[in-house]
This record gives sequence, structure tokens and C-alpha cells, in this order.
Amino acid sequence: MSRLFPARRKKAGLAPGSLVHVGEALAQPAIMESIVYNTAKVLRETLKSPADVPLPVDDAVTWVQVRGVHDVEAVRAVGEKYGLHPLIMEDIVNTTHRPKAENYDNCLFVILKTLDYNSDTREISIEQISFVIGKGFVLVFTQGENKGFEAVIERINSSVGRIRRSGADYLAYALIDLVVDHYFLALEPLGEDLEALGEQLLENPDQQFLVKLKKMKNELLAVRRFMWPAREAVGALMRRDSPFMGEEVAPFMRDVYDHTISLMETVETFRELLSGTFDLYLNSLSNRMNQIMKVLTIIATIFIPNTFIAGVYGMNFHYMPELEKAWAYPAVLGLMTAVTVTMLLFFRKRGWI
Amino acid sequence: MSRLFPARRKKAGLAPGSLVHVGEALAQPAIMESIVYNTAKVLRETLKSPADVPLPVDDAVTWVQVRGVHDVEAVRAVGEKYGLHPLIMEDIVNTTHRPKAENYDNCLFVILKTLDYNSDTREISIEQISFVIGKGFVLVFTQGENKGFEAVIERINSSVGRIRRSGADYLAYALIDLVVDHYFLALEPLGEDLEALGEQLLENPDQQFLVKLKKMKNELLAVRRFMWPAREAVGALMRRDSPFMGEEVAPFMRDVYDHTISLMETVETFRELLSGTFDLYLNSLSNRMNQIMKVLTIIATIFIPNTFIAGVYGMNFHYMPELEKAWAYPAVLGLMTAVTVTMLLFFRKRGWI
Amino acid sequence: MSRLFPARRKKAGLAPGSLVHVGEALAQPAIMESIVYNTAKVLRETLKSPADVPLPVDDAVTWVQVRGVHDVEAVRAVGEKYGLHPLIMEDIVNTTHRPKAENYDNCLFVILKTLDYNSDTREISIEQISFVIGKGFVLVFTQGENKGFEAVIERINSSVGRIRRSGADYLAYALIDLVVDHYFLALEPLGEDLEALGEQLLENPDQQFLVKLKKMKNELLAVRRFMWPAREAVGALMRRDSPFMGEEVAPFMRDVYDHTISLMETVETFRELLSGTFDLYLNSLSNRMNQIMKVLTIIATIFIPNTFIAGVYGMNFHYMPELEKAWAYPAVLGLMTAVTVTMLLFFRKRGWI
Amino acid sequence: MSRLFPARRKKAGLAPGSLVHVGEALAQPAIMESIVYNTAKVLRETLKSPADVPLPVDDAVTWVQVRGVHDVEAVRAVGEKYGLHPLIMEDIVNTTHRPKAENYDNCLFVILKTLDYNSDTREISIEQISFVIGKGFVLVFTQGENKGFEAVIERINSSVGRIRRSGADYLAYALIDLVVDHYFLALEPLGEDLEALGEQLLENPDQQFLVKLKKMKNELLAVRRFMWPAREAVGALMRRDSPFMGEEVAPFMRDVYDHTISLMETVETFRELLSGTFDLYLNSLSNRMNQIMKVLTIIATIFIPNTFIAGVYGMNFHYMPELEKAWAYPAVLGLMTAVTVTMLLFFRKRGWI
Amino acid sequence: MSRLFPARRKKAGLAPGSLVHVGEALAQPAIMESIVYNTAKVLRETLKSPADVPLPVDDAVTWVQVRGVHDVEAVRAVGEKYGLHPLIMEDIVNTTHRPKAENYDNCLFVILKTLDYNSDTREISIEQISFVIGKGFVLVFTQGENKGFEAVIERINSSVGRIRRSGADYLAYALIDLVVDHYFLALEPLGEDLEALGEQLLENPDQQFLVKLKKMKNELLAVRRFMWPAREAVGALMRRDSPFMGEEVAPFMRDVYDHTISLMETVETFRELLSGTFDLYLNSLSNRMNQIMKVLTIIATIFIPNTFIAGVYGMNFHYMPELEKAWAYPAVLGLMTAVTVTMLLFFRKRGWI
Repeated sequence: MSRLFPARRKKAGLAPGSLVHVGEALAQPAIMESIVYNTAKVLRETLKSPADVPLPVDDAVTWVQVRGVHDVEAVRAVGEKYGLHPLIMEDIVNTTHRPKAENYDNCLFVILKTLDYNSDTREISIEQISFVIGKGFVLVFTQGENKGFEAVIERINSSVGRIRRSGADYLAYALIDLVVDHYFLALEPLGEDLEALGEQLLENPDQQFLVKLKKMKNELLAVRRFMWPAREAVGALMRRDSPFMGEEVAPFMRDVYDHTISLMETVETFRELLSGTFDLYLNSLSNRMNQIMKVLTIIATIFIPNTFIAGVYGMNFHYMPELEKAWAYPAVLGLMTAVTVTMLLFFRKRGWI
Repeated sequence: MSRLFPARRKKAGLAPGSLVHVGEALAQPAIMESIVYNTAKVLRETLKSPADVPLPVDDAVTWVQVRGVHDVEAVRAVGEKYGLHPLIMEDIVNTTHRPKAENYDNCLFVILKTLDYNSDTREISIEQISFVIGKGFVLVFTQGENKGFEAVIERINSSVGRIRRSGADYLAYALIDLVVDHYFLALEPLGEDLEALGEQLLENPDQQFLVKLKKMKNELLAVRRFMWPAREAVGALMRRDSPFMGEEVAPFMRDVYDHTISLMETVETFRELLSGTFDLYLNSLSNRMNQIMKVLTIIATIFIPNTFIAGVYGMNFHYMPELEKAWAYPAVLGLMTAVTVTMLLFFRKRGWI
Repeated sequence: MSRLFPARRKKAGLAPGSLVHVGEALAQPAIMESIVYNTAKVLRETLKSPADVPLPVDDAVTWVQVRGVHDVEAVRAVGEKYGLHPLIMEDIVNTTHRPKAENYDNCLFVILKTLDYNSDTREISIEQISFVIGKGFVLVFTQGENKGFEAVIERINSSVGRIRRSGADYLAYALIDLVVDHYFLALEPLGEDLEALGEQLLENPDQQFLVKLKKMKNELLAVRRFMWPAREAVGALMRRDSPFMGEEVAPFMRDVYDHTISLMETVETFRELLSGTFDLYLNSLSNRMNQIMKVLTIIATIFIPNTFIAGVYGMNFHYMPELEKAWAYPAVLGLMTAVTVTMLLFFRKRGWI
Repeated sequence: MSRLFPARRKKAGLAPGSLVHVGEALAQPAIMESIVYNTAKVLRETLKSPADVPLPVDDAVTWVQVRGVHDVEAVRAVGEKYGLHPLIMEDIVNTTHRPKAENYDNCLFVILKTLDYNSDTREISIEQISFVIGKGFVLVFTQGENKGFEAVIERINSSVGRIRRSGADYLAYALIDLVVDHYFLALEPLGEDLEALGEQLLENPDQQFLVKLKKMKNELLAVRRFMWPAREAVGALMRRDSPFMGEEVAPFMRDVYDHTISLMETVETFRELLSGTFDLYLNSLSNRMNQIMKVLTIIATIFIPNTFIAGVYGMNFHYMPELEKAWAYPAVLGLMTAVTVTMLLFFRKRGWI
Repeated sequence: MSRLFPARRKKAGLAPGSLVHVGEALAQPAIMESIVYNTAKVLRETLKSPADVPLPVDDAVTWVQVRGVHDVEAVRAVGEKYGLHPLIMEDIVNTTHRPKAENYDNCLFVILKTLDYNSDTREISIEQISFVIGKGFVLVFTQGENKGFEAVIERINSSVGRIRRSGADYLAYALIDLVVDHYFLALEPLGEDLEALGEQLLENPDQQFLVKLKKMKNELLAVRRFMWPAREAVGALMRRDSPFMGEEVAPFMRDVYDHTISLMETVETFRELLSGTFDLYLNSLSNRMNQIMKVLTIIATIFIPNTFIAGVYGMNFHYMPELEKAWAYPAVLGLMTAVTVTMLLFFRKRGWI
């Protein structure tokens, strides 16, 4: 549940721009990689140190990935090389930040979240990803060893579509589009789990049912929490508030924006289905209760009067004339049967059995 | 329930404009048909291949229907012939798209949903329909073998109303109006089912009741989900954001817009009625529980004291003087009757019987 | 409940402007009446046929009433005489339309609903009323034989207030004001019924209670459904979006608008009270259940132990020494009394009795 | 509850500006008072008749109070003397009006509500107050014999603050500020009652609890109903939409506006607390039910098996060998004890006792 | 709970600008301190009396802290020295004010709340803090002996970051940033308590559970109540509505604004989790009830029929032939066993045991 709470204790009172990593710290240094391409060539390099990070050039797109923002020094070095505002660097290393898109003088700064579904644990993992989009370059900062962008690298290498002919803004679009497409991949199994839960409800809900329901609710809460600002951030990109987003990228960004709206609706639909499932669960509990009560009522109300009759003829009064009649015992048995039958008919008429 | 979930797994990471059909795939190729008309003539043709698709001409309206968007090649061929943006083609073949209206340089692109009620299965089917409205032409792309536009073709043939004298925008209006009119046809039996459910509730709700309720709730959820964006899309058409929607069509579009608002309200009213029905159902369950409890209480509380009295005189103490009195047995029976009557009066006073 | 559902099945696919009456059809033709007045004179005429409908003149206000929109031909004839847009006529005869105010080139078109409370059936009836306001004329179209405007005719005849000195816009205001004033008259008895329901709840809610509650809820739903768009329509009139609403009428329209807001608040308050009443009803049910359970518990828990004691001394063991003691029977009776008193004290301490 | 419903039956169909008092009618005529002041002098007069009402003068502020709007003639006379629009007078005498601020050519018209808490009946009373603010004058119309403005008169007399140096707009501010300050005085005891209710809940909620809760809910509903439009009205004054509100009064009006927002939040907080209290009440009921059920279960499940054992050995079979054993009776008593202890241990393990 | 209610009784009817302290009064006078700094020097002084308060100078930033707004005279003296509007001073001493940012001619006035979590009592304390930001100066007014700004003083002293090179607006930013950072520190343990509560629910919720839940709900209500206006106030600062907020501070303010949004979301998430926890609690209660009912039903339904059988053979009829058979007693015991086994199988089939 910890992903629902912020964790910023370390920062209070520090000067802005003090780089303090907030999030899970990893031991190894950040992995850095650069890809420089234009219509003519593609150059991909793994960078040993921040000093190797290439600066943007005029006739090509420079894409630098820094994988592992816990490596505060790497972030600082790359950031300073590209002249980023201190607050940008501060936000990059704080992995609890909410998605946003912000204009700066020399760049456009975008924070999003990546969503991955682990099919083994059936859990969602959310990581932060930051984009710095400037004139001729895109910087990407991720938590951990994110390898999700191979599909885009592939398109660059094989020159599929217009990516090689377009600028840094189109690259940024391609990357953000990929991030958003992964949301669909992660939501789909969630939807399947939800459907499975709804079916289990009709069969045999056990103690674990409620635990699963609560877990799913918290996951949806966590997803929803970043989905709204992510939609806003993509919306801001679509409206081209920044000089670093060109006109020809606008329809593509609108497409991504459509996807985020569709995702929002999916999340809201899931929430509604979950809430409906919970209501049905409560209702099935109370139904079960009714069943139990009915059985108790029927058995008790049939035997209680008969037990009373037996009790009467178990009394030890000396003068109980009927005790001595030969027909009395069968008569009492008959009375008991009559009482039982009357009761059963009454219950049937009421629709209880 | 699957219509509540998106299904895009295949697409993540592809270049935009990659045509991947998302939805139910059919075996046969798409059916293509063209109607070219002006005040003088009407020419209707079934097209063998995308190559036969006519290009728009100056003095007539060209209407091309492509029925079956699973036929990705047909969509691509027609789209390229008309010079459509790749994203338009991508959206046409993705049948899980939400309704929208988008301006492009050379056309206006509208996605809507058709709604049909199958009176046999009592189920709603939702299909996607896309319109591309340009200078002198309207392209319509549907899922499956949609035959819903015969009424408009009839009006063109018999030259009813202003359709033959008007442009492509009026044709688009006529088609969209027809799509929206079908929403009413589909919602009406849903309303009747809802009313029937409400009446069944008062009579004898069975186990199926809840299943039907849940099914209806999910259907309303699915309808509502596309109704909101459909309203927005029609609203955008009404406000004439596009050069392909002429001034004289505006009041007609406003009329369609009114209908979509009225539909939204109907859907919201249905939801409210459904929720009220669910509350009443829960209440009727708890009422029934109360009835059962009352009967149990009354029978138990009448017999438990009497059984106790019988128990007392069933004890085997040697010295129980009253056992030997001749009047004791009738006296005890009288006591039991008195207890019973007292109880019944008490219950009546409390209003329990 | 049928007023909550639209009923347009007949229309799908027809050309716009096709006049198809939607609503309850009446046998007799429409009643038509015209009143032409200025400061000097008042001329009131019952019109035999649409051909007699007077056209507007320069120095007077022409007010034409067409009572009975099921008479499609009359509506068409009047509409064509005044040059109304086909969509206006289509909306007039469709009595399921929602309230709206629309600008046309030659007139202002307003749809509202009239609200009447039938004190015998204690039911609300909602009918549609349409106004066409143009230069020097007001056309009014009503369902059935609406006679509600006598108060305005009286003011015209007796020249009360400024009505004779003012134009068609002031007449329109006077009529709309009257329609809105009737909303108050209809809501008031509804409020009284609601209060009566609340009081009945405290006394003795019967089976009918819930039926009444549901009926009232549906009536409020129906009223609310047209009240919101009616407020919007009056608001549009107030903002003088149309050349047919003069400046001096604006403060009067603002007054009507205030009334519609006040009505909206009343309807929302009623809904909230109704929902509160329903909650209290559910609570009273569960309270009653608690009372019943308490009595059951007390009686059962007092007699069950005593019955057990009696059972013990009803056993037939040969060697039960206490059976032979003379003091045993009174001692056991004492024990039973002690158990009973202890139980009662325990229940009192717990606050259960 | 009647304050939640409008009561306008008398008005429908009358010409606008027809003065019809709506509200509680009092027998005595209205009390009228005028205060004319500037930096040099203060002149306070009780006015015998509307004819004595002073007209505004250039170098002083004229403040006229009319206490008792049921005296329709007095309102009309004063209104006509000051040339007020007929609709203003109509609104003044209709005491069910919602708060608003309206601009007229020659004045600014403000309706508010006064709120008083009667500490004896513990009830809130709401009355209407109207302000007409013009060039050099403020007219105040109240229901009944409102004496709440003595604090302002005192400030005028003793020349505290800037009131004597400022214009009519500042006087209006001072009066409205006082009205709003009284809201705090009335809400505070309501808050105390609410807290008391919350504490009573934990101790011993009785039958009256729910009645009190409902009464408080309706009072909050009534307060909330006028608080929202009152906030809007004060907000309109703050934004100086009118020439009768000078620039130097703006910060003071902003202060009043802040207070109205704070009041709104308080009312909403109260509503939320009330709703929370209701939920806790329901929960405490169901908790109590659980307690009762537990006791019933424990006692019943302990004695039912033992009573069965006793019943077995109370059977009259001739051949029951154990009946003749000397150790049988103590053995059975031991068995019963063992059953009881087993049961108790089982319950303790389950955490039920 | 008192922090949820306003407390302004003393003020009604007073002239605006009358300084009346509202809040907890402390005995000692206010502590005043001034820090004057520029790039060259830092001068920190504890001030004996308001007369010692330094006025702003051209080439340095003057920061004056007044700790203890209950000392009305100190606030008035400082306020008059800096020429503050009377309403500013009135708001400073009223510690129940809601957060806001207001522009005045000579300054920008900001009210916020500080949030502290006391780890001993596990309670949140909320205090008011006011900032007056003008040309070259920042005045800070706090309740009680707030020492929270040492971190900023440290940065000034040691010249960390740009604080010494920047103006009063940057100082104001640094202080507000610190206040907002403390919100995170206070919310974090609240989140931990919430998580602990959720875990306790699964284990063993006791009577205290509900009390804790209610306390936490009220605390969240109190936090949420000032968080919304605090966000608005910071948003107003970010949008630079005032000349006292320079352009270079804007990105920093945007950063603070981001934090307030993130806090709002956290509070809303907490509320949602709390409400979910409450629902689960209710559900666990009703589950427990079901468990108890099940045990009661099983035991009762097993023994009630058997007790009846025993009762039958305890009757004293003279002619009960089976009583004399030797096999009768074992046969009846067998019958009882058969009944028991049948019952248990029935319950197992139903899934009740």
C-alpha cells in the first residue's frame, strides 16, 4: 500500500535544487546510453560516464537515456551539461512525483509513470519516467533498468515510419505513445482479474475474496491517482504550449491524448464494476444469512409445538384421564403430525420453502 | 462484459498509422458500395475492388460505404485514394475507439457507435461506424454487414426532402441523424425491460433477478460510456469547427445534438431507476427477513414458557403435593392458555401480528 | 412511469421536418384563437381554420394560440403562414421534447413544460408548450385544451399593468411567467405529501409506504428532468441572445429566472428529504427488528435454563437422592426463581430492558 | 419544516409588481425609522407615516429602516418615494425569496437572510432582510421587529471607526457585515448541539436521538439553502459590479465574502459530521444487535444439548440399564458439565466471550 | 473537535479593524526577532519592543518574525509601523481564519496553516501563520513560540543556494516551501496510523477501533478544510497576481504548488482509504454475525428434533407398546444418531460447515 503515500521526509528545509533521491535505492550506478540519428545514420553508444554524454548537434536528433535515477550524481552531471533548471533535476530524482508537463526556457519537462503488470505475482508496478525535450534532443530518465524502449530503437534502426525524417518532438511522441500503450497492456489483465472475481462471487466466495477485492481497489486507486495528471500532461503537450512541440506532431499527440481519455474511462469503469461487485458480495452474504435463518425457523417452529405437546403428556399429575386411554398415544402422535403438516403448508403458502 | 474492456495488446510500440484491426475478425472481404447523386441523377454501384472506388466530382455528392473494417487492405486502399491521414485509417480499423470528431486539413473525421437491440436475445449490440466528410464526398466505414442506411438511400432515390439539392454535409447529417435515431429504438426496449424488472420485484423476485439486474447495469454502463463522447462529437459538428460543415446544416445538427442530450438524460434516468430498483430489492429482502423473524419469535415465545411449565410438572420429586390434586391438571392447562393469550395480546399491542 | 422514457420509434430515418405527432393523440381538431391588441383596442377571435390565422401587423401585438398539437395539419398550416423553419414544426408536434430556447432568423423558439397537480388522483401531469416569438407576434402551441392563460387575457382586457403598452416580448414574458408560477402551485402539494409521508413514517408505515415513496421519487425525477433545461432556456431568454427580446423585458425575465432557480432548489430539497425519509424508513425497519430480537432473547434466555433444570429432575434414574427430600421441590423452584431474577438483572444492567 | 417549501400560491397570473405579502402576517403596522448623518451631525427619527420618510440629501447619508414588510402599503409608499422598480417592491414583500444582489439603474438591490438562534427552544429562525443601496441612501426592509442594528447605530453615534466619514456604501457594508457576523453566532450553538449529539451517541442513544438528528439535518438544509446564494450575492458586491459600491469599500466586502466562504465550509463540515454521526448510530444499533445475538447464542447452545441429555434419561423405556446404576446420575451430571465447559472453551477460542 | 468550529462570538458588530484575538491566549508577550541580510552581511536581532522593529532598507531584505499573535498590541504596533491595512491586522490576530492570499496596495498578505504531528499523543496540531510580503521585507506572524524556521535561517547564515542573492519574494518562497514541506512530515505518520488501523481490522477490531476511526476522520476533515484554500492561495502566488512576487520566483512557486496538489491528493486518498476501512469494518461485523448465526443454527437444528424424540418417549401414556420392547431404547438412540448425521450432511451440502 506504500505506493499510496508520499515519502519526502528527508527534504524539508533544504534549498530548492538540492538533489535528494526519494524512492528505492539501488546499488549499481545508472546505465547511460545515447542514440544520435538522422535520415543518413544512426549512432548508438553505451556511455561509461556522464562526461561521455553527447551534446545536441544541428542536423541530428540526440536521445540520451539515463536508467537509474537513484544515481544522483549522474543525473546532476547530465543535467548540468544540458543546462537544466535545478528544480528539474530535483523532480527527476524524486520518484514520488505526480505526472506533469512544464515549460522551461530551454526545454519542455515531462514526468510520467510507467505501468507494468507482473503476471507471476499478479501485481502492478509503477515507476517514474522523466522526459526533457529540447532543441534537437530528448533526455529520458527512468527508475531501475527499464528496457521498454527497444521497439522505438528498432523503428529508428530499420527506419520504419517517419521517425528518421522527423525531429526530437516526434521522438518524444513515439516514446510517450509507447508508455501510454503499455497502460493498456497492464490494465487488460486487471480487467480479466476483475471479471474472474465477479464469476467467483457467483460460485463460492471465500475469506480471500475480500482481501483480493481490497488489493484490487488499492491498485486501481494507485493507477487512477497518476492517470488523471498524466492525461493533463499529455493534454498540455497536445495543445502545443511549448516551442519544442512542432505543428506536425500535434495530430499524433492528439491520438495519445485520446488514448489517455480512453484509459481514464477504463479505470473509472473498473472502479464502478469493483464497487458493483462489492455490493453484490454484501448482498450474497445477506442472502446466505436469510437462507440460514429460514432453515432455523422452519425446523424450530415445527418441533417447538410438538415438543410442548410431548411435555404436557410427560407431566406426572395423578389425574390425567387421557393417559389411560388406549387410543391416546396414537391420537397425540396424530396431533403432532397434523401440527407439522399445518406448519409446512403455512410456510409453503408464504413462499418460504 | 468484454465490451467494457479495451483490447489493444497487439499495437504497443508500432509506428502510428500501422493498420491493425482490433475487434471481431470476419472471414469475407469488405462490401463496398458507392452512390453518386445530384439533383439530376442517382448512380448506385456495388464495387468489386478498392480500385473501383470513385473519386469525388465537382457537381455531385459521392458517398462510399465500406462495410467490414476487418478488411484492413480495403480500408487502406480507399483511404490512400482519398489521401486520408494515417491516423484516420488506424482509428477506423480499431473498433474499440471512443466516439470523436476531428478536423484534418482535407476532411472531417467522425467516429460514432451504432446501437442495436436484438429482440430475441434481449441484448444490445454496439458497433463502430466512422465517417470521413470532405469536399463533395462522404466515406462511411462500418463493422460487419450494416444495412441500416436503406432509409437514406430511399430518400435519395425518391428525392424526398432537400437531400438531393444539398451537399455532402447534409448527407453526413442525414446519416448521423439516422444513427442517433436508432439509439432511441434501442433504448426503448431497455426501458421496457427495466419497467418489467420493477414490476417483477413487487411480485416474486427470484435468483435470476439479481443476474438480470447486473446484466442491465453493465449494458447501461456500456451505452453510457460511448454516449458521452458521442454527444461531444455531435456538439463539435454543431458548432461548425470545420469548413466541411456548411451554415445551412447547422440547425439540423443542433437538432441531432438535442437528441443526444435527450438520450444522455434517458440513460442517466435509467441508471437512477436501476439503482432505485436495486435498493428496493435489498429492502424487500430485509423485509422478508423481518417477516420470518417475527413468525419465529411469536411461535417460540408462546411455546417456550409453556414447555417450561410442562417440564416442571414432569419432575419426579416425591413430594410435589399439587400432583395429587384432581384439579391440578386442568389448572395447569388453564395457566398455559392464560400465558398464551397474554403473549398474543402483548404482540398485538406491539403491532407485531 | 412512461413519462420517463422517450417514445420516438416512428421517426427514425424520415427526412427532417416530416411532421409526426409523438404523444397522446386526441380525436378533435385543434382549437385556435387569436388576440390582437394595442393600447387602443383588443380583438379576440376563435379561428375556424388555419386560413383565418391573422398575420402580424405593425401597430399591434398578435397572439395566436393553437391548442392541440396532435392536429398536425393545423400546426403545419400556421407554421407555414408564419414562415417557420421545418425543424420548429417538427419539435412542436413531438411532445417528448426537452425544454429549450433557440434563435432562428425570423423568430425565437421556446419549448417549456406545463405542470399541473390533480388534487383527486394526487398526481402530477406534465404537458408540452411551445412559444414562437417574432416581430409583433407570439404563437403558442399546447397539448390538449389548455385554458391556463385566462389570467393574462384578463390583464390584457382590463389593461392591468404595462401589458397593453408593451410589445410581443412582454406578452411572451407574461405567458412564460405564468407557466413558471404554476410550477410552484404544483410543487406545493407535492411538498405537503412529502411531509405527510414523513409523519406517517413515525406512526405506522405500512406496505403502501414504499409504493408511495417510489411513486413520489419517480415524479420528482420527471419534474427535475425538465426543470434543469427549463432553467437554461429561461436563462438564455434573460441574457437577451435574441433580437426579439427587448431591453426593458430583461429585468422581468431575470425575475422569472430567479423563480426557476428557486424551483430547482426546491426540487433538490425534496429529493434530499425523500432520500432522508427512505433512510429513516430503513432504519425504523431495523429498529423494529431489534425490538423483536430483544424480546425473543429475553424470553428464551430466561426459560431455557429453567427448562433444563426441570429436565434434570424429570430423569428417571433410580438413585437420585434429592428426589426423595421433602424440601427438594421448593428448593428447585427457588433455584429457578433465582436464575430468572439474575437474568433479568443482567439484562437491565446491559440496558436491554 | 415549512421553511423548506416555497409558498407563492397567491401570486400566479398577477401582473409583475403586484405587491402581495408572502409570509407570516403581523397585525401592527411597520415601524419606520430614519438616521441621517455626516461627519458633523447625526439625526435619528422614528417616522409616523411613509410620508415622513426623508429623501436623500447631498452632504449626508440617509438610512431608512422599515421593520415589518407585511405592511405592504408602507413598502409601496417608501418604494415609490425613492422611485424603486416594481419588481424590487414585489421581492421585498415576498419573504420566501432567495438571497441575491441585483443592479438597477438607480440603485443596488440586495436580499439576504438573518439567522437567529433561540437558546430556549434550541431552534434557528430565519428572516428575510432587503437592502436598497443608492446614491447617498440605504433602505433596509426587515420582517418583524428586528432590532439587530443597534451596534451599528452605536458606532454612528459615537463615531467609532470610519463610518461617519464614509458614504452609503460603507454603511451598507457595516450592516451586511453585521448580518453575516450573526451567522457565526447562530452556527456556534448548532455546532455545540452537534457535538453533544455525538457524545450522547457513545453513551445512551434513545428514541429521541433520531428525532433530534432529523431536526438538525433539516435545519442545516434550511441554512445551507440560503447560504450558497448569500455567498454569491456578497461576491457580486465584492466584485463591484455596481456604481453604488465604491472602491474603498471593496477590501471590506472581500472580508465579508471571506466570512461567507468560511460559513459555507462550516455548514458543509456540519453536514459531514451529521452524516458521520448517523452512520455511527446505525453501526451502534447493529453492534447492539450483535451483542444480543451473542448472548442468545451462548445461553442457547449451552443449554440445548444438556436439555437433550436430560430428555433422554427422562424417557420411560422399561429396559434402560444405565438408569439402575448408582453412578449413572452423577456421571450424567458430569457429562453435562463437560459439555458446558467444552462449549465455553469453543466460544472463547472464537473470541465470542 | 473544536478545531472544526469557528469561534468568533466576540466580534459581531465591531468596526472592521478592531483587533480582537480569537484563539488560545497565552500569558507571555510575543517574541520578536529581525533578520536583515544581503549578499554582504546578515544581522539577526531579538527585539525587545515593537519600537525596535527595523524598517525595510533599500539594499537588503528585512525579515521580521512576531511569534505569538495573542499579543494584540505587538501586532498592532508592527502593523502600523509598516502601514498595513486594518483588515490585515484583524485577520492576523483571528487564528480561525482560512488560508488565503490577498493583494493590497503596499503588500501581499498570505495566511497559511502549519501542521505538526505530535508523536506522543499521536495528534495533529494546526496553527495559523501569516506572511506580509512587501518591497524588501517579509513579516511573519505565528501563534505560540514557533521555531520551525531555523533551517531557513541556517541557509541565510551559511549562504546556501541563492537565498542571499535574492529578494524578499525568494525569502517568502523559502518560508512557504518549508511550511508546505512540513505537511508531508505530518501526513506521513497519519498514513502509517491508517495502515495500522487497516491491519488491526483483519486481526481483532475492538471497541476502540471505531473511536480511533472517528478521530482520524475528524483529523482528516480538519486538514482537508485548510488544505483546499492553502492550495488556492499558493496557486495565486504562482500566477504572480502581485508586483511583490518577481518573475524568477515563479518556477519555485510552481514547485510549491505542485506539492500542495500532491498533498490534496494524499488527503483525498486517505479519506477514500478510511471510508474503505469503515466499509470493511462493517462487513467484518456482519460476517461475524453470520458465523454466530451459523453455529446457533447448527446446534439448535441438531438438538431440537432429538429433544422432541426424547420428549415423545417421556410421555406417561399407559399404552405405549414400544416402551416395553428391549430393543426400543437402542433403536431410539440410533434414530437420534441418524437424524444428527442427516442434518450434518445437509449442512455440509449447503456449504454451511
